[in-house]
Amino acid sequence: MVNAVHIHEFQEMMKRLYFQRDSQRGIKGTYDWLVDELRELGEALEGEDKEAVEKEFADVIAWLASLANISGIDLERATINKYAGKCPKCRRSPCQCPF
Amino acid sequence: MVNAVHIHEFQEMMKRLYFQRDSQRGIKGTYDWLVDELRELGEALEGEDKEAVEKEFADVIAWLASLANISGIDLERATINKYAGKCPKCRRSPCQCPF
Repeated sequence: MVNAVHIHEFQEMMKRLYFQRDSQRGIKGTYDWLVDELRELGEALEGEDKEAVEKEFADVIAWLASLANISGIDLERATINKYAGKCPKCRRSPCQCPF
Repeated sequence: MVNAVHIHEFQEMMKRLYFQRDSQRGIKGTYDWLVDELRELGEALEGEDKEAVEKEFADVIAWLASLANISGIDLERATINKYAGKCPKCRRSPCQCPF
């Protein structure tokens, strides 16, 4: 049983599971599938089934990792580069951007 | 400098940075913002600027974490529950689902 998962490890697991199929489908088709998964998450969030919501969150991050794999992007590196403990705009934590 | 990030740690960082603002915006508004970030990722993927693509990936996972925070979902737990090293449908790695 896995108890803690690095973003990078999760992306690598998705690569082992799905890279061949993701590559064949391509970036456009995988992006469209991710859009569809996000729509399903939106529908689940309008309901009361928390387990369904959790599964849809898992699907969105899974398809995001698949899309990152075939786009040559390291999701963990991307998050570290943009969100290293502070807001990328105001450089503070918590964010104090004047919206 | 952060070198490795658990999905859970990333979600907690997003909570420290943005939870108050995310809560005020609410689930619907945060979901709509995530949809918009995914659209921006799609546009970046059509171009040649890999740095822009990386930043859009970071934004999508960041807004997904924000949405999970205000929805009471632990993203890491969600991924472990659904994708624990094998395909949730065929139970194999790599996936061998007959699509």
